Amino acid sequence: MKITKEILQETQQRIKPFVHRTPIMSSQLINEIAGVEIYFKCENFQKMGAFKMRGATNAILQLSETEREFGVATHSSGNFAQALALAAKLQGIKAYVVMPSNAPEIKKTAVKGYGGDVIECIPTLEARETTLNDIVNKTGAIFLHPYNDYQVIEGQGTAAMELIEEHDDLDAIFTPVGGGGLLAGTAMAAHHFSPKTKVIAGEPMGADDAWQSLQKGEIVPQTNPQTIADGLLTSLGDKTFPIIKEHVEEIIRVEEKEIIAAMRLIWERMKLIVEPSSAVALAALLKEKKKYKGQKIGIILSGGNVELSKLPF
Amino acid sequence: MKITKEILQETQQRIKPFVHRTPIMSSQLINEIAGVEIYFKCENFQKMGAFKMRGATNAILQLSETEREFGVATHSSGNFAQALALAAKLQGIKAYVVMPSNAPEIKKTAVKGYGGDVIECIPTLEARETTLNDIVNKTGAIFLHPYNDYQVIEGQGTAAMELIEEHDDLDAIFTPVGGGGLLAGTAMAAHHFSPKTKVIAGEPMGADDAWQSLQKGEIVPQTNPQTIADGLLTSLGDKTFPIIKEHVEEIIRVEEKEIIAAMRLIWERMKLIVEPSSAVALAALLKEKKKYKGQKIGIILSGGNVELSKLPF
Repeated sequence: MKITKEILQETQQRIKPFVHRTPIMSSQLINEIAGVEIYFKCENFQKMGAFKMRGATNAILQLSETEREFGVATHSSGNFAQALALAAKLQGIKAYVVMPSNAPEIKKTAVKGYGGDVIECIPTLEARETTLNDIVNKTGAIFLHPYNDYQVIEGQGTAAMELIEEHDDLDAIFTPVGGGGLLAGTAMAAHHFSPKTKVIAGEPMGADDAWQSLQKGEIVPQTNPQTIADGLLTSLGDKTFPIIKEHVEEIIRVEEKEIIAAMRLIWERMKLIVEPSSAVALAALLKEKKKYKGQKIGIILSGGNVELSKLPF
Repeated sequence: MKITKEILQETQQRIKPFVHRTPIMSSQLINEIAGVEIYFKCENFQKMGAFKMRGATNAILQLSETEREFGVATHSSGNFAQALALAAKLQGIKAYVVMPSNAPEIKKTAVKGYGGDVIECIPTLEARETTLNDIVNKTGAIFLHPYNDYQVIEGQGTAAMELIEEHDDLDAIFTPVGGGGLLAGTAMAAHHFSPKTKVIAGEPMGADDAWQSLQKGEIVPQTNPQTIADGLLTSLGDKTFPIIKEHVEEIIRVEEKEIIAAMRLIWERMKLIVEPSSAVALAALLKEKKKYKGQKIGIILSGGNVELSKLPF
């Protein structure tokens, strides 16, 4: 086992000074609707607005002195770009972020706002990788993968550790699944600190590569994903998949309208701004609520970065 | 003095089992923008989504046994309607709410959802009052005013009491002002429990009756208010005005675009859903931020009930 109990405990201590211990919230009304007792871990309140801050911080804090001088680099148009920029800034090191030229201006601005160096490329995966390689070769920056990296996975697992510390009798924890960093980290946290707690993921029907991968027993790459949950478009990786295969109970697929309905419920009833990807976990629980009736469930609200001018309501 | 320290302490004990002690949140980024250290009291997380629950609960809990049998009545198309319905339901008594027929369906549904009896009338103030009188005469229900009522004012003051309990060195507390229940309650709480803390209100320029009333030294009724802050359309009352006149430091008027910008800041940076009325207090502070530079300020985020299909973004 690569990710031990001790590694997770060290991770939690390492990143503690640089991330928020986010609150856990409940809604009586949503509990009534679900017939389930739900504890929402609010990573939308995390620094830069998503759990990704945990993994980015953990990876950056383990760079050597020499590596720190060269800085870090990644390609991302999502929350990991902002997380890496902010986590690097807090450690006084440089972050290079390759972003497709068609990424929303607001996201580029956010990365720059956190002090990141944005390098634009044409919007193809090939161009992203080539541009990233160029940057790494030119600057010596250390490439950090948004999810397929043990240190990143370990960092993401600390959200579930905090949830388990406050609620040690959860029947299950639900997360969304995209590349699998949060899901794998959560699965390892439950495995070590609350082995009776099942770990379950919600995934959009239109981007169901993780569900397909579990069915087939090997990684099925995500092609042409179609979903409002823009944090869940990526494929599993060779580090996240084996953990998920071994430790995740089930992946529940949800329709777009179920995602939007769950998002609306969280916005209207909890007064919390969460991004569509976050709502996927609640949508999955609501879809299978009969199965979890009367149980005590944790849900990780992964983030709250949405464009207010593009809401689905 | 009608509202004594002891009355406020009794009020807090009385309503405690029936309302949430809401969290207090901060945003480093908003602090940097304002140049001020701000503590937001999150009444958007209060039961039914607004501070009004406090005042309604306090008034209902002081009904006599006989009065309880007849129930309570009010006319409102806003948060007090929902607050009265829910507070009454929790005490097992009946609530009659007169609402204009053109009130949003979602608000009527919310009142009914909390078990309230909705009586529709044509949308004029006269019809509202006549219909309410009919209901009161027919049922014997006790009329509760949404803000011009000492027990309601005392209940609203408990939000500031909780804020002061956790931060006893605030230089000022900002609230929005509509009918003045929250502002008067906050002013009395500060007066008794933190006399050095100034109390200041934000008010929309297009509904500035409270500002005008302070200028003139007498109540200037609100006529034809024009603002997105739909909780602040009412006039001060003969119970709220004298308290505000004596104990409120200043009323700061803000433009619609300042309200929307402040609302957007809270949504985007704090991931909190607040209604436009709540943003008025932050907008006022931002407008006068030079004056409060380096100070420690409390802001009461009054509520989070917005129609998601009608956002100003």
